[in-house]
Amino acid sequence: MNLLKNIDVPADLRKLSRAQLKPLADELRGFVLDSVSKTGGHLSSNLGTVELTIALHYVFNTPEDRIVWDVGHQTYPHKILTGRRDRMQTLRQMNGISGFPRRDESEYDTFGTAHSSTSISAALGMALAAKTKGENRHAIAVIGDGAMTAGMAFEALNNAGVYNDVNLLVILNDNDMSISPPVGALNRYLARLMSGKFYAAAKNVGKTVLPGPMLELAKRLEEHAKGMVVPATMFEEFGFNYIGPIDGHDLESLVPTLQNLKNLKGPQFLHVVTRKGQGYKLAEADPVLYHGPGKFNPDEGIKPAAASKMTYTQVFGDWLCDMAEHDQRLVGITPAMREGSGMVQFEQRFPSRYYDVGIAEQHAVTFAGGMACEGLKPVVAIYSTFLQRAYDQLIHDVALQNLDVTFALDRSGLVGADGATHAGNYDIAYLRCIPNMVVMAASDENECRQMLSTAYQYPGPAAVRYPRGAGIGAAIEKSLAVLPLGKGEIRRQGKDIAILAFGTMVAPGLAAGEELDATVANMRFVKPLDIELVKQLAQTHEVLVTVEEGAVMGGAGSAVAEALAEAGIVKPILQLGLPDRFIDHGDAGQLLAMCGLDGKGIVASVRTRFGGKGEPRLVVNN
Amino acid sequence: MNLLKNIDVPADLRKLSRAQLKPLADELRGFVLDSVSKTGGHLSSNLGTVELTIALHYVFNTPEDRIVWDVGHQTYPHKILTGRRDRMQTLRQMNGISGFPRRDESEYDTFGTAHSSTSISAALGMALAAKTKGENRHAIAVIGDGAMTAGMAFEALNNAGVYNDVNLLVILNDNDMSISPPVGALNRYLARLMSGKFYAAAKNVGKTVLPGPMLELAKRLEEHAKGMVVPATMFEEFGFNYIGPIDGHDLESLVPTLQNLKNLKGPQFLHVVTRKGQGYKLAEADPVLYHGPGKFNPDEGIKPAAASKMTYTQVFGDWLCDMAEHDQRLVGITPAMREGSGMVQFEQRFPSRYYDVGIAEQHAVTFAGGMACEGLKPVVAIYSTFLQRAYDQLIHDVALQNLDVTFALDRSGLVGADGATHAGNYDIAYLRCIPNMVVMAASDENECRQMLSTAYQYPGPAAVRYPRGAGIGAAIEKSLAVLPLGKGEIRRQGKDIAILAFGTMVAPGLAAGEELDATVANMRFVKPLDIELVKQLAQTHEVLVTVEEGAVMGGAGSAVAEALAEAGIVKPILQLGLPDRFIDHGDAGQLLAMCGLDGKGIVASVRTRFGGKGEPRLVVNN
Repeated sequence: MNLLKNIDVPADLRKLSRAQLKPLADELRGFVLDSVSKTGGHLSSNLGTVELTIALHYVFNTPEDRIVWDVGHQTYPHKILTGRRDRMQTLRQMNGISGFPRRDESEYDTFGTAHSSTSISAALGMALAAKTKGENRHAIAVIGDGAMTAGMAFEALNNAGVYNDVNLLVILNDNDMSISPPVGALNRYLARLMSGKFYAAAKNVGKTVLPGPMLELAKRLEEHAKGMVVPATMFEEFGFNYIGPIDGHDLESLVPTLQNLKNLKGPQFLHVVTRKGQGYKLAEADPVLYHGPGKFNPDEGIKPAAASKMTYTQVFGDWLCDMAEHDQRLVGITPAMREGSGMVQFEQRFPSRYYDVGIAEQHAVTFAGGMACEGLKPVVAIYSTFLQRAYDQLIHDVALQNLDVTFALDRSGLVGADGATHAGNYDIAYLRCIPNMVVMAASDENECRQMLSTAYQYPGPAAVRYPRGAGIGAAIEKSLAVLPLGKGEIRRQGKDIAILAFGTMVAPGLAAGEELDATVANMRFVKPLDIELVKQLAQTHEVLVTVEEGAVMGGAGSAVAEALAEAGIVKPILQLGLPDRFIDHGDAGQLLAMCGLDGKGIVASVRTRFGGKGEPRLVVNN
Repeated sequence: MNLLKNIDVPADLRKLSRAQLKPLADELRGFVLDSVSKTGGHLSSNLGTVELTIALHYVFNTPEDRIVWDVGHQTYPHKILTGRRDRMQTLRQMNGISGFPRRDESEYDTFGTAHSSTSISAALGMALAAKTKGENRHAIAVIGDGAMTAGMAFEALNNAGVYNDVNLLVILNDNDMSISPPVGALNRYLARLMSGKFYAAAKNVGKTVLPGPMLELAKRLEEHAKGMVVPATMFEEFGFNYIGPIDGHDLESLVPTLQNLKNLKGPQFLHVVTRKGQGYKLAEADPVLYHGPGKFNPDEGIKPAAASKMTYTQVFGDWLCDMAEHDQRLVGITPAMREGSGMVQFEQRFPSRYYDVGIAEQHAVTFAGGMACEGLKPVVAIYSTFLQRAYDQLIHDVALQNLDVTFALDRSGLVGADGATHAGNYDIAYLRCIPNMVVMAASDENECRQMLSTAYQYPGPAAVRYPRGAGIGAAIEKSLAVLPLGKGEIRRQGKDIAILAFGTMVAPGLAAGEELDATVANMRFVKPLDIELVKQLAQTHEVLVTVEEGAVMGGAGSAVAEALAEAGIVKPILQLGLPDRFIDHGDAGQLLAMCGLDGKGIVASVRTRFGGKGEPRLVVNN
C-alpha cells in the first residue's frame, strides 16, 4: 500500500497496471479522509470521486487533455494526484492551497470553479478552441446531478449538441445529491434512468419480453422506432451520445468505458453513478452532515458541537419560523441551500410554504416575483455571491415592478476558508444602484432580526446583508418589530471624527471610536441612506470616515460621498472597505485585519490619512 | 367587419360566436399592421400571435386567469383586445403605452416582461400562489422557441414538473425564430417534433405499420414501453402533459384544445406552431427585417433607408471584421443577437469564428472564458441590459481568473422607445466594483473603435460601453491603434469649473463648457480612472462636475469622488447622471433632456448648485 507516495504527477499514475488502481483508490480514499479530518473541508463529495478521478487521469493525457470540475469541491483526489499531496495539510488556510480548482495553482486546474454549473460551458469553449487551433485534445466536464438543474448547464448542452466534430465529454456524476437532497423533475428523470429499468428496457425491450418470431417483429419495430421515435434519453435529444449509467466506483467499468469514449468524435455524455461519502460509513449514512465538516476524529465521527454562539444563519432561520407563524402570506424560497441558509426547521414546520427550487437562482427570484404579484410575501434566502446569478431577474422582474420580495443575503462580505469565489463583496455596489431597492447591513444578531422584519414589512424589494458565521453575541429579542426606514443611530458620541459604520463594521468602528474618541454611527441602511444623519455628522465633525465590509468601489462609502455632494457639503472623507482585488481564502478575522477592517486597522488608517496620534491632526492634502 | 370596435374588454370577445372569431382575427391583424406601420414597433411577432391571443382570451377568464407573455413584444393584439385599442397610436412614445406588458398599465398585464424566458417562472409562482390561497384560477405562460433556449426556462420547467396539482399551462409558441434565426440542439429537436413524424409516429406506431394480431402485440409493446421507456417528449420527461404540435393560426384547433386543457390538472404543455409575420406577405418572407420596423407604408413595404449616420452597432461590426482579419485568434460570440449587435457581416466573412450560442447570456460569458483559457481572444457582443444576465459568470468565471475577454456593451444608457427594461443604466456601477475589470465609455464613433481595439489588446477582461443608435458623426479612422490605458484627455481648457465627462456626455459636456467657460475632460476610462487627471483638474479648478449617462448611484462620478477621497483632496463636486428611478419609454433625446443630461441641463445644474449666471458664483453650502 505505498502506491500513492510515488505519484507526483498523473504520468506516474499512468505507469501503474490496471490491477494496481483498486489498491490505489483505497489508499487515496484513506488519504482524503485523514487529510480532511485534520484540516476540515469538503468530505462527502471527495470520497465519492476517488475512482472517477483515478480513471480520468489514467485514461486521459492530462494536462494536455482538459478536465473541468464543476463546483470543484470534489477535487481533493485530483489535487492529491496532481502534485499537491503534501500541501493538503494547508488546505483552505491562508497561503495554503484552495478548496477549489484554481488556474494559478496548477496546470491541471484548467478552469477555476466553485459556483455551480459552469463546467460544460467552459469545456465546450476549450473543445472548440482546440478544434479551431487544430489541436487534438479532449475537454471533459465533470458535473453533478444537482448542478445539472441550473439553467446554464442546459444552455451549454443546447449549444454543444450541434457540434458533431468536437472532442467534448460531459460526465454526469450522479450521486442523487446537491448539497441538500435534490429536487425537481430532472432528478426524478435521472432516478428513472438510474433504476436501470429505463435504459436496459429501451435497449432490450424485444429480447426480454418476447419469444421467437415476435422478437423479430419487436426488433423491426424497435428499429423503426429508433429512426422516428427514440432518442432514448433527454441527453440524446440534445445531440449527445449517451452512455450509462455505469458504476462510478467500479474501476473495471470506468476505465474501459472512458477508453472507448476517448475514441469517439462529437459530444459524448457519460452517466456515472457514485455515492457521496463512499467508503466511510458515517458519511455514507449522512452525506449532508459530512458535506463540509470541520476537524474531527475519523474513528469517532463528528461530535455534536458544544453550544456556541448563534450564527446569523440560525438567526435568520428562527426569524423565518416566527414570522411565518405570524403571517400566513410568508413563503420561503431557497435555491438548493436548505442547510446552508438555515431553513431545515422552516421546512419541517411549514412544508407547504417551503420551496426548494433547485440550483436555480434565476428562477428563484422571478418565481418569487410571480408569487408577490398574487399577494404572497416571498422571502428568498440566498448567499450574496449567488444572488449575482439572479442579478437581471432582481432588476427586471422584481425591482422594476417594485414587487414585495425580501432577500436574506447570507455570507455577505468575506467568508474565510471558501475564498474569493464565495465572498459576498459586491452586493452593496450592485444593489444600491437599482431603483426601488432597500438595502440594509446588520451590525449584530438582534439587529439582523429587526432588519429582516423591516425588509419583510416594507412593501417593495428589500435586502438584508449579514455575514457568515457567528456575530458578536448580542441578545436576541423575540419581537418582530421593525426599524424606522432609512434611519441610522449614533452609537458613540465623540469629537472631530465621525465614523459612519455599516453592518459588521460597527463593532470594530466602535473599538476605533474609543481609541480615537470619535463619534460612531451605526448607519443601518445603505439605501435609503440616512441623509439627515450624514449631514448632521458632517456639520458637527471635522472629518468623516466610512467603513464597510464590502468593496469600496461603488460601496456604502460612495453613497455617503454622493449624499454630501448632493447636499453641497464639502468635507474630508475617508472611505474604508475591501480593496479592489480578489481576496484569497484564509481565516476570516485575519483577512479582515489584513484589509485594515478591524479596530486597529481603522485607527491606523484614520491616523495615516489625518495624521496625529491621540488627537487627530486634520491635515487636508489638497 | 366591425367586430373589433365593440371589444373593449375580453368579456366582450367572449360574447362572440366561434364563427365570428376568424373574421375578428382578420380585422385584428389588419389593425396591428396599420397601427405598427404608423408608429413603428414590433411587427412580425405580433402578426404571429393574433389567433393565439384571441383564443386565449376567448377560452380563459381573463383577467382572473393570468396570462404571462414571455418577452412581451408580441402583445399588441393582447393590448388591443384589453382596452388599449385607441391608445395604440401612442405606442412606445413618451407618456404613451409601452411596447411591452406592464402591470401598471392594465390589470390584464399580469407580469412585466421584455427580457426573455421569465414567463414560466412567473406563471409558476402565480399558480402556486393560487393553490396556496385556494383560488381556482389558471396561470398561463406563452413562450417562444427562442426563449426556451435560455437556462432559466429550464430551471422553471424542472421546478414546475413536480407539482401534480397546479393549474399551470405553458404554451410553446414555436415560430422557428428568435429575433435572429434560432440555433442549438433544442431547435433541432423542436423541428423534429414539428415535422409531425415524430409525435404521430410515437402515438400511432402500431396502427400505421402493422396489421391484425401484430397490431395487438405492438399495442401491448407500446403500453409496456410507455411505463418504462417512453416519455414521448422532453417536456413529458420534465413532468408536463405534452399536447401538440397544433396549428397556431387555426382557431378551430386552438379553441377546443385550450378548452380541453382548461379542464386538466397539473402542469400542461401545449406546443403551438405559428409563423412570424403571418398574413402580411412581406413580413412572412423576411420576418427579421420586419421584426421591429420604423414607420412604413404597408402597401410598399420597408424601403431601404437613405444613407444616414453610422450607428455604434455598425462601428462595432466593422471593427470586428477588421480586427478578425488582423488577428486569427479573434472569435465573436453573440447570445442570439446577430442583427442587433451588428454581426451579420462578421458571420458571413468569418463563419467558423462566429458563435451564436442562443439566448444564453450565462453560457456565452463562461464559454468565452473557456476559449480564453486556450489562447483564443473572444469578443462577446452583448447589450448592457442583457449582461445583467451573466453578472456572476463575468465575476466568477472571467474576472476572478483575469481572463482575456472583450465585452462590447451596446445599448448602454437610455434606449428610447424600448423603455426601462432595455435601458443600460447600471453597467458602470455593476462593472467597476469588480476587480481586474477595465471599463471604457465611448464619446464618439471613432473613439468607440479605438476603445474596442484597446479592450481587445488589453490582456484581461475589458468592456466598452456605447449607446444605441448613431453618434455625433465623427470620422472613423481605419486604424486598429489603441488608447493609452487609464488616460483621459482635456478637450477644452476653461477656468473655475472642470467638467469630467464620460462617454456620450462629452458632447453635451463640451456644449455646457462653452456656455460656462469651463474646462472639459473626456475621461474615457471609468476604470482604471485617470487619477492624475482628476488630481490635476481638482488642483486647478474651484469645482468639479462629473457627468455620465448612467445611474449616479455607484457610477463614474462616485469613482471620481473616491479618487479624491483616496488622494485626500477636498473639493466641491457635482455628480450628474441618471436619477434613482426607472425611466419609461420615449424619445431618447427628450428623455436625456428630461434628466438634465443635455448641454442646457448641465449648465442649469451647475448654476443651480454653484450659483451665478455667466460666471459661476462658487457658493459652497456647508
